[in-house]
This record gives sequence, structure tokens and C-alpha cells, in this order.
Amino acid sequence: MKKFDEDIIAALATPNGEGAIAVIRVSGKECFKQIDKIFKGKNLLSEVKKNTINYGKITFNNQLIDDVLVSIFHSPNSYTGEDSVEISTHGNPLIVQKIIEILLKQKIRLAEPGEFTKRAFLNGKFDLTQAEAVADIIKSRNDSALKGARNQLNGLLSEEIKNIKKSLIEIISLLELELDFAEEDLQFISRNEIVSKIREIIRIFETLITSYRFGRILRDGVNIAIVGKPNVGKSSLLNYFVKENRAIVSEIPGTTRDVIIEEVNIEGILFKFYDTAGFRESDNEIETLGVEKSEKTILQADFVMLIHDVEQELDLQFYNRIVSLTEENRVLLVQNKIDKTIKKLNENEIGISAKTGEGIEKLFKHLMERIGQTKIYTENSLIITNLRHLEILTKGKNYLKNAIYALEINQSQEFISIEIRYTLEMLDEIIGVVTTDEILNNIFNKFCIGK
Amino acid sequence: MKKFDEDIIAALATPNGEGAIAVIRVSGKECFKQIDKIFKGKNLLSEVKKNTINYGKITFNNQLIDDVLVSIFHSPNSYTGEDSVEISTHGNPLIVQKIIEILLKQKIRLAEPGEFTKRAFLNGKFDLTQAEAVADIIKSRNDSALKGARNQLNGLLSEEIKNIKKSLIEIISLLELELDFAEEDLQFISRNEIVSKIREIIRIFETLITSYRFGRILRDGVNIAIVGKPNVGKSSLLNYFVKENRAIVSEIPGTTRDVIIEEVNIEGILFKFYDTAGFRESDNEIETLGVEKSEKTILQADFVMLIHDVEQELDLQFYNRIVSLTEENRVLLVQNKIDKTIKKLNENEIGISAKTGEGIEKLFKHLMERIGQTKIYTENSLIITNLRHLEILTKGKNYLKNAIYALEINQSQEFISIEIRYTLEMLDEIIGVVTTDEILNNIFNKFCIGK
Repeated sequence: MKKFDEDIIAALATPNGEGAIAVIRVSGKECFKQIDKIFKGKNLLSEVKKNTINYGKITFNNQLIDDVLVSIFHSPNSYTGEDSVEISTHGNPLIVQKIIEILLKQKIRLAEPGEFTKRAFLNGKFDLTQAEAVADIIKSRNDSALKGARNQLNGLLSEEIKNIKKSLIEIISLLELELDFAEEDLQFISRNEIVSKIREIIRIFETLITSYRFGRILRDGVNIAIVGKPNVGKSSLLNYFVKENRAIVSEIPGTTRDVIIEEVNIEGILFKFYDTAGFRESDNEIETLGVEKSEKTILQADFVMLIHDVEQELDLQFYNRIVSLTEENRVLLVQNKIDKTIKKLNENEIGISAKTGEGIEKLFKHLMERIGQTKIYTENSLIITNLRHLEILTKGKNYLKNAIYALEINQSQEFISIEIRYTLEMLDEIIGVVTTDEILNNIFNKFCIGK
Repeated sequence: MKKFDEDIIAALATPNGEGAIAVIRVSGKECFKQIDKIFKGKNLLSEVKKNTINYGKITFNNQLIDDVLVSIFHSPNSYTGEDSVEISTHGNPLIVQKIIEILLKQKIRLAEPGEFTKRAFLNGKFDLTQAEAVADIIKSRNDSALKGARNQLNGLLSEEIKNIKKSLIEIISLLELELDFAEEDLQFISRNEIVSKIREIIRIFETLITSYRFGRILRDGVNIAIVGKPNVGKSSLLNYFVKENRAIVSEIPGTTRDVIIEEVNIEGILFKFYDTAGFRESDNEIETLGVEKSEKTILQADFVMLIHDVEQELDLQFYNRIVSLTEENRVLLVQNKIDKTIKKLNENEIGISAKTGEGIEKLFKHLMERIGQTKIYTENSLIITNLRHLEILTKGKNYLKNAIYALEINQSQEFISIEIRYTLEMLDEIIGVVTTDEILNNIFNKFCIGK
């Protein structure tokens, strides 16, 4: 691993915008001395005690920029593990900009995205899965996602990885011990025992891998496109969600022809409903644009709710068009206006009334089932939410399967142990024991600046 | 003045949104004890030293919500003057919401807008003009506005008001002393001297009052509508500003028919150029909407730049239509494309080339002159930016004029001194010596929550 440079870095740590206060983070060896050049308080920041808050004024060229509070953190007892300060200013973007400009004139450079957390990782404050969890904690939009990220920050994933590593190292050390006694042709562990141990580890890998789909839903929510012909009650259904579930209505800026998103949080799962423009035939250019957007929405949705007026014939051509844009098992045919009909629905048909709310609870139950596996995961289950982890675990699983194959065709120890070694390398990549600049940059570039 | 209640209040102090950290402010007598109920750190917050930062975990119902840093401020050495804490959390709106919800279960209530600053004022941390300056400091969008707000926070306006008060009290005490000696018919101060002293104070009032227009421009910028027929070079001119002045281009979301705003910062003054939709004749509904928006833009603009192709005849009907929407002295006729003509312009005509940039500096010089008085105000001039102050000063000036009138028609001391007393009351209202709940609510309701 490349030794990271010892620059002092600075960035705004709070969201950009107007507020009561804004906080600028600075981190790096003896950053206090640099800040002392522009800070006038009762004492020098380089001389005050750690973990103290110090009132003073930031001035530059004899001009007062702002009166601020400066929090002092001494290495290693800071977020980054380095000497750090947090400058709390009036919450005006112009003031923040000025102060950062002044800081950049004091042997301090602007932090890259995630650089504070990267330094915390490089200084051994936590491992790589925990560093990644910091970004997830900030981005979590519902309780379950937050809980998952929290578990990861607390080291649940790291622990699991370490347990797997321990088992694999046990196997490998016995195998390699056999190599040392190769001439005696000893077996310290039976081949059947290795197979069953490795199969058990593969099962753990598989559980983690299948948790990913649920994890992604936890983190990002379920995207559901609502489609249907005019007047089947698409808007009524969305209005019902808004009214009953305090949905967050987030209209994408633009004309009313754009896609409208409603977010509904049900049992900790975020459902994002995308209201589409409808599929009227039209020569009008703007209308065509609307259709294109609808198609794209369907393509990207986890599920498509096709709303249909129960009293009308199903337009099979329309239905097939929708299915052609996604997969049949992702399309949910919802019969609306059941309050107005005497028609009896089949057991497996979904009928609702967007007006009275009848059937909507059942609709969500059905959705939950389709999302699947919701019941398998409890609050403290370990859930993978990170694509990088998924990819590594999938590779690791394949190496272990290779190992099993090598065992089955009775290959010698080297062939088994090399696959296990590959798996161990993969696991080390997850927790960041082995890593490259490229991997680190990929991870931390996704962070916001200031974290 | 009503004694303010002793509730403990809490609110998010940083802008809402995603960031590295968020800060929640809590203020009120012994708030530490309430926070100790949900905070687990090395020590109890109610027992740690003031001005320290304390790491720990916020938990509720045995569930970890977030690990946080808590800054401790003891009365009177805090922003509000009360016991206060600042809780620094991960910058996720969901976490902030959860923590605030938990705080609200601990005998803490949500702060009203500006309530922290209001408490600071009520606790004598600063006077009312300074409290108002806090809001202005947060809202300032350019250097001059910030400098003005800074001056006000530093007490420049308060000082001026106190000086005026001192002069008025001197006059009034001499006048009222005469009343005590009414039978002797003594004059402790000559009527001419009073007139000249009051006239001098009126002059100060007038300077402050006229500074308001400039102050408003400092704070909010100059709104300039750019109008003109198609192809006269409106967009080229805007593009030139963007290119040459690093303008902030802020398109109002929506269709291209909406008004586009470009902000250009020149010599510390913010110019906001509103590109209008143009005034083509049209039956189209959307087009008509565009025209309506253009008219509204012109109505609200400080100046209208009418761009005209120097080679073409001026369409007087169009010109008059624009003038009818505003005032003639607010319309600036700008002849564009002077690089393409051999035509000579008069001395008082403004010619530019949006293509080459020729004449644009002169155009801004002209604009600066029209804004007026820019040269009168230096960096440390006292400038009124607050409508409340303007209104009070205008009233005060009228009372003083009444006093002069009373002196001129030789009325007795009481009539003079009552007008001066009214003026003094007005001045006390500015700095907040005398105030009502209504006034305070009006002022602080305009603040953001958390300040």
C-alpha cells in the first residue's frame, strides 16, 4: 500500500446551502499551526487542550471574515486519526467559500471526496467494509437501510469475513502441513471433512450473495412503475398513497408530462412509485417524448403495476407491449374500481379500489412477497448492500467450488490450497487488508467531499 | 417585555440534506441532564467541563441511533447565553430526524425560527439590530452585502443610533429643565441652537434612509431585465457575461420558455440579468404565457436593458410598450452589433458588441451610475438594508420635522419635547430597548430554524 501523503486537507463537512451554521473540516499533521495564522482567539490553537471548543475570529489581510468556533482534535483521537479541527462558521455559502479560499493559502489543499474517511482507514481507525459503511450511513433513506449500514459500521460483516478466513486458514494450514510431510503421505484432515467444511462456507457465501438483492432494495427502495390507459385510476392510486401513507411527493422538475415519483415507506421498505405519462397515440412531439420516458421508466423498474379498470376488457396488445419492455413476472396486473363492480375476481387476481382503499393492503402484501425473502431477514441479519462485496463474494464462491472439484477428482493438496488461497485474497480485499490505489479510489470517489 | 419561557429547545442548525456531518443545536437551562438520558459517553455531559467535545452514542430503547460528538457550552458563555449543546451526527437527514424525535421525548421542544438568536437577544448577548444582522449575514450573497451585515453585527448601526439618542437626550433634558423653571422663563439652550442640532440629526436620518436603496441592491443585487426582438443579440450578450465574468447561470426549472437568470458579480455588486422570452405575436397559449412572464419580469426589474440592433430602425411601438410596463428612466436602450456598422452613435447613446465585448465595460459604468451613489458609500459606510429600520427612521424623521415646525411657530417646550420623545422611542425600537412580542415575532420568524 502506498504511504499516503501528509498534506493538510480541508473541505466543507455540512451540506452546502443556507443554515444557522456550517462546519469546515481540516485534517493533517499540525494543522493547528496553519490555522493559527488566520485565527485570532484567546489562545493559540496549537497550544490549547485537545477536545476543546475555541471562540475566535478568522481574519485575512486585516479583514474580519467571520467569528467562528474551532473544535480541536489531537492525533490519534480524531475521525481521521490525525490532528484535526472543525471550524464552525455562520451558515452562509459565501462565508464558507471565503474561509476555504483563505485556508488554501495556508499550505492546506482541498480534500478529495471521501479523503477524510480514506485517511481514517489508512490510519487503522476501521477496516474497509466499515469505511464503506460510513457512506451508506449517510445515504440511507429508511430504517432498514440505516440499520444495515449501522451493522456494517459496527463490524458485523468484518466479523463474518474474519470467521470465514479463520476456517479457511485452518484447512489450508493442515493441507500445507501435509505438503511438508509429503514423503510420509500423511493426511491430517480427511478429504470428506474438507469437502463438508468448504460446502458450509459456500453456503455462507450464498446466503450473503442472495441477501444482496434484498440489500439493494433496503438501500435504494423498490422502483415500481405505474402504467395504464387514461382514466383507469393511476392518479387516484397515487393520491391514495399520499393521503394514507404520508408519501413524499417528489415531482421531477419540468412539465406535467414528466414522470412523477411518490415515495411510500411501508414496514421500513421504501416503495418508489413512478407515475408514467400514459401511452396515448400521438403525433405531437412532446407526447412522444412522454412515451419514451414511460418506456425508460418501465425498463428500469423492479416491478410494473399495470392498472386496469375492472369493468373494461383487458387490451392484450397494450398488456403485451408492457411485458415486452420488461419480464412477465415483473408485471403486476391490478384491477381497479372494484367498489363499482359486481364482477367476482379469481383468487389469484389483485383487485383494489383506489377510492375506498379496499384491497390495497393485500396489494402491498403481494408486493412484499414478490420482493421475496423479506421474512428471512431479521433486524440483525447480515445483509450485503455493496456491489463490490457481491462481486468479490461471487468470485470467492467460484474458487471454493473449484476447490471442491479438485477434491472430487482427487487432485493433490497444492491444487486445493491454491483455490483456498485465492478465496482468502478475495476476503482480504473486502476488508481492505490487501488493496490497491485503484480499489481505494473507486471506493472513496463515491463519497461526498468533506467526509 | 414578556419574560421568555425556559423551555429547552432543539433544531437542526446545518442545512438540511446529505453531508459528512449535521449539527443539532439544543439550548435551555440544564439541557445537559436531558441529553444525558439518551447519550452514552465516557462521562456524563452534566459533569464534563464547559467548551469540551465529547464522543459518545445516542441510544433509544436500547437501539443505537448514531455515534456523535457533543459540544458543551455553559451559560452565559454560549450563543444563546444559556446552557447549550451542539450534537454533531452523521450527515443523513433520516438520522437527524430520528435524533430530533428522541430529543422531543426528553422535555425538549422544537425551536421556532430564529429562537436561538431571539434568546441571545433576550439574554442581552446583543441588541436587536445585531440580532437582525445575524440573519443578514447568513443571507448575504456578495461581498458588499456581507460587509454591510458584518458592520451591523459589529454594532455600527447601534452605535450611530446611540449617538443620535445621546444628542436628542441632551436637547430634551435642557428643554425639560426649562419646564422645571417655567416660572422663571429661563432658556438653557437657544431655540436656534436646537433647530440647528435637530436639522443635523435629520440629515443623519436622511443619509441612512437614502442608503437603503443602495443597501437593498447590496443585499439582493440589481435586477435587470433584458428585452429585445428576436435576433438582436440578447443571448449573445448573456453568453458574453457568462464567459467573461464566470456568471452563475441559474435556469429556472421548466421549459426553455421560462425566464433564465444569469448572475454576474461586478465590483462586489450582484447583477441579475433576466433573459425574457421575447415578445413575438402569437396565438399559442404557451407563447402567451411566455409574454406574461416577460411582462412580470419587466415590472419587477430595477432596470430594463432594451437590446436593439444598431443597423435596424427602432420600433417605437415596441419601445413604448416596454416603457409603459416600467418607467422611462429605468429603460436603458442598448445598441448592439456596433462591430458590424459604420453608423456613428451619439455621445449619450450606449453601443456595444456582444460578440467582441466592445462597449460592455462602459455599459456597466453607466449602470453603476444609474444605480447611483455607489461612490458615496465606502466599505465602512453605514448602510441600512432592513425595511424595518427604514420605516422607523422615516417615522423618526417626520417627528423631528414636527419638532422643527413646533420650534418655528414658537410652540412651548412640551410640544417640542414630545416629538423628540417619540423619536427616541422609535430609536429604542430599532435597537430593541423597547419592543413587543409582535415586533420580535415579526423579526425572528424570518430566520431559519436552528439559528
